[in-house]
Amino acid sequence: MTGSLAEGLVCIDCGAAHPLAYRLECERCHGLLELRYDLARLATAGPAAFAGTGLWRYAPVLPIADPAHRVTLGEGGTPLLDCPRLARALGVRRLLLKYDGPNPTGTVKDRSSTTAIAAALQFGYRVTSVVSSGNAGSSIAAYSARAGLRALIFAYERASAPKLLHMAATTPDLVIYQGVYDDLIVHWDRLVEEKLFFDCGASRNAYKHEGKKTLAYEIAEQTGWVPPDVVVAPVAVGETFIATARGFGELTRAGLIPRAPLMVAAQATRANAVVRAFRDGTAIAPLKIGYTVAEGLAAGNPGRKGEWVLRLLREGQGLAGDAEDEEILEAQRRLARTEGVWAGPTGVATLAVLTKLLAGKRLDPAQTICTIISETGLKTEAELPSRAGTAFDYESLRRLVTERLGA
Amino acid sequence: MTGSLAEGLVCIDCGAAHPLAYRLECERCHGLLELRYDLARLATAGPAAFAGTGLWRYAPVLPIADPAHRVTLGEGGTPLLDCPRLARALGVRRLLLKYDGPNPTGTVKDRSSTTAIAAALQFGYRVTSVVSSGNAGSSIAAYSARAGLRALIFAYERASAPKLLHMAATTPDLVIYQGVYDDLIVHWDRLVEEKLFFDCGASRNAYKHEGKKTLAYEIAEQTGWVPPDVVVAPVAVGETFIATARGFGELTRAGLIPRAPLMVAAQATRANAVVRAFRDGTAIAPLKIGYTVAEGLAAGNPGRKGEWVLRLLREGQGLAGDAEDEEILEAQRRLARTEGVWAGPTGVATLAVLTKLLAGKRLDPAQTICTIISETGLKTEAELPSRAGTAFDYESLRRLVTERLGA
Repeated sequence: MTGSLAEGLVCIDCGAAHPLAYRLECERCHGLLELRYDLARLATAGPAAFAGTGLWRYAPVLPIADPAHRVTLGEGGTPLLDCPRLARALGVRRLLLKYDGPNPTGTVKDRSSTTAIAAALQFGYRVTSVVSSGNAGSSIAAYSARAGLRALIFAYERASAPKLLHMAATTPDLVIYQGVYDDLIVHWDRLVEEKLFFDCGASRNAYKHEGKKTLAYEIAEQTGWVPPDVVVAPVAVGETFIATARGFGELTRAGLIPRAPLMVAAQATRANAVVRAFRDGTAIAPLKIGYTVAEGLAAGNPGRKGEWVLRLLREGQGLAGDAEDEEILEAQRRLARTEGVWAGPTGVATLAVLTKLLAGKRLDPAQTICTIISETGLKTEAELPSRAGTAFDYESLRRLVTERLGA
Repeated sequence: MTGSLAEGLVCIDCGAAHPLAYRLECERCHGLLELRYDLARLATAGPAAFAGTGLWRYAPVLPIADPAHRVTLGEGGTPLLDCPRLARALGVRRLLLKYDGPNPTGTVKDRSSTTAIAAALQFGYRVTSVVSSGNAGSSIAAYSARAGLRALIFAYERASAPKLLHMAATTPDLVIYQGVYDDLIVHWDRLVEEKLFFDCGASRNAYKHEGKKTLAYEIAEQTGWVPPDVVVAPVAVGETFIATARGFGELTRAGLIPRAPLMVAAQATRANAVVRAFRDGTAIAPLKIGYTVAEGLAAGNPGRKGEWVLRLLREGQGLAGDAEDEEILEAQRRLARTEGVWAGPTGVATLAVLTKLLAGKRLDPAQTICTIISETGLKTEAELPSRAGTAFDYESLRRLVTERLGA
């Protein structure tokens, strides 16, 4: 199957149906829109609906009808790593990492960028834009370049050095903003209305959002269509979490998997508006936040998607947790040394949260748990080890090696 | 087919056959060894011999018999990107990039690390070691951690910041050496004889070398078993070049592809010992080299593998070329802006060389040319754009956007 099964957009609040156009909210109630598909046809076709490799293997459940619009850098198809050594360390029966570092720009953002830029082409736009802490900016700039579109990227002043270099390399239109994501996004989101550019932001665009759904499809297929009991997903404004939950929902309704995993929302403690609301049983109170090492999670006001995450958590009897910066950095070190996976702080916040939930007996350790690791460690900026080198001859080298190895 | 078709080791100089043991050179003449396979069985099975995803899809043509030894971080299966815009800019009919950035540690090294560490387990070693400019060190450390082995990594003092952070994160045994690769490798290669650790170096170990062969298998399969006319591969000591050429050779002999591509060897001008020898029709004269931005190509003495590259070039009527640092950096910028691929200087040296060969009419522009891009740009250290940010309100943001877009 190479076409798309997308049928239309539906308001998540009032249920009103809308045609497959570039529309960012419900005409009736201004609610967020989500894409709907012909799941009956997916149920009939089964896994045979999916062909090819990478993210576009799941084209039938993505909203891009014309294959010529499917701009690709080879995203998706990332590894699902069984981690027995780390599982033992955490005291859980089975631990799987969905490691999204091996994407073209090193993060999960490539999943949504490919559908965002494809949709920009589908709807005839020549300019894209996004407000970013660094990862989305790199990714949207890269996919825009690949499509021959212009990308106006707004980047966080504290973005790490590798992220800044990446953005500056891929677009001539890089603008550094003062403050945090929350400070700019309110103004930028207003500009989206004027249609000066295609909306590549995380607040509203259902087409952009949609690519991340393939996380669920890949996890399901990589586990032989019997997904893990629990999936831990990061939450900044909630895009990855919602998309993954929606993917598992579609797979369940189409009968491709027996049941959807329990979803866990992971945040940095320094930007934990969703976790607080979930814990307190309240609506979300936006937070005034500062810096967190998990740069990509630095959103104090997750907006309407935050409310959507809360609703999914409450409906699905999910869990939410947060981790302090030092716990996130400890998870980063531990993952590198234990399993050889070098992930960034934004990427390992999920693992730090999982560690705490297991220690606090909030999760059943007899289950199979999957953690989404959303970012490579190669985008990390941190204090370097000393570069002071040693000049070796054969004897001094031999001495060092035998001493180190205790031989 | 899940087993290995490896039959033994053969000396590339005298042709003597050796059993499948951990042996680094010919007992008779000290020549380099290469692995040999039952290609008749591969010919009979055809592409159906390959199953699963990623690098270990090609397990039948890799020398690891026991699946339990196949340590993986999800390497291989990287994209082959058709680049029509860049092809037009270079004046070539069709240009394909084999982009190896989306590997677990961001480079082609993961292909050889997975077979190196698997072989270390196969032969009962608990400690690994390598001398590296940064990429091999990161990769061997990561795969060693994944396997629960200890990794003694010798890293170049001028390795980029992301490479240093990566190595320090993945192994507690990181040693920084003064000078360049050539200065240390002669001493370290002597230590290999004492079997204090498993040889993860590029000089001799046929098992380590072997994983990179999958580049050829992937390129062949991704082009429907009709590979491109020309493949451009980087040469430091020659591992990637030789492995790729060997892979195409096996595929040709097994009848899976009609003919092997013409191979082009690409070096940095500042470390161009192989290119000089090829151009002058001489043996290789080792060079005393300094720094090049293509850190991973900084080897002035490619040793016996350099001679092997030369022989393959002369036998296969291949080509060789080099590029200056500024040309390499220009290729890096151009690739990012034209196709959205952010690759490191080590990774784009091939593209810089290809650009020169096309400009000099050394290659037929009516052909299909594939360039191996061996490294992500996320490991690049360079001068940062200014982080001075602007505080926006709605009006100032709107003004900036409309001015930038000329609206």
